[in-house]
Amino acid sequence: MNEVHRVCVRYHAAIELIGARWTGAILRALFTGHHRYAQIKSSVPGLSDTMLAERLRTLEAEEIVERRVIASTPVQVEYHLTEKGLDLEVVLDAVKAWSHKWIPLPGDEEPVGAAQGAGEAGGD
Amino acid sequence: MNEVHRVCVRYHAAIELIGARWTGAILRALFTGHHRYAQIKSSVPGLSDTMLAERLRTLEAEEIVERRVIASTPVQVEYHLTEKGLDLEVVLDAVKAWSHKWIPLPGDEEPVGAAQGAGEAGGD
Repeated sequence: MNEVHRVCVRYHAAIELIGARWTGAILRALFTGHHRYAQIKSSVPGLSDTMLAERLRTLEAEEIVERRVIASTPVQVEYHLTEKGLDLEVVLDAVKAWSHKWIPLPGDEEPVGAAQGAGEAGGD
Repeated sequence: MNEVHRVCVRYHAAIELIGARWTGAILRALFTGHHRYAQIKSSVPGLSDTMLAERLRTLEAEEIVERRVIASTPVQVEYHLTEKGLDLEVVLDAVKAWSHKWIPLPGDEEPVGAAQGAGEAGGD
């Protein structure tokens, strides 16, 4: 395998991992302090149980998310970003900045103007 | 629709647009000066004609890529990033930096060490 291809593969794997359907939104939920399954689910409208469970498994396997079992009664499970996961903050912030500049809000004509007043405090 | 959801939708749309299979690699090809169809195709190993054509159509529809027809003989077609597309550089650079730190090269055990000597000049 040539070097260009080998390096390309790495970038490719990263962007598709992060861009997988729902993964970006789940990561954003974790970054904004949602750690329990139900909290994550309710912070991502439209996300099904099957999909959330599947994505969390993948993120765990990739060592981006760590599953913590807290020995309480009843036992609690929390999902936290690992160091590898926390390092994605730069990427997610860049995506957020770009989307706020360029993607129109549903129902709006212009991407920039309407966004400023309405949704910035929304915590996406 | 509540405000959180409306804003979330925007971020969501952006990350899934960029993360769609092959799109990240195609954008990287455009950023590194590949403008003709055949150049883009050959710079992304494994990318089929169907998929490249489909992705370019989507990127054009999203106004991230502009299709230029050059009146020569024979007529030439080039694909260029628009202002919206060029603004993605920050996102792609962040993904690249993260992937170089955290994603192992195929066949290597450690992500960081081996990468330095081998592939950095590969121009991914």
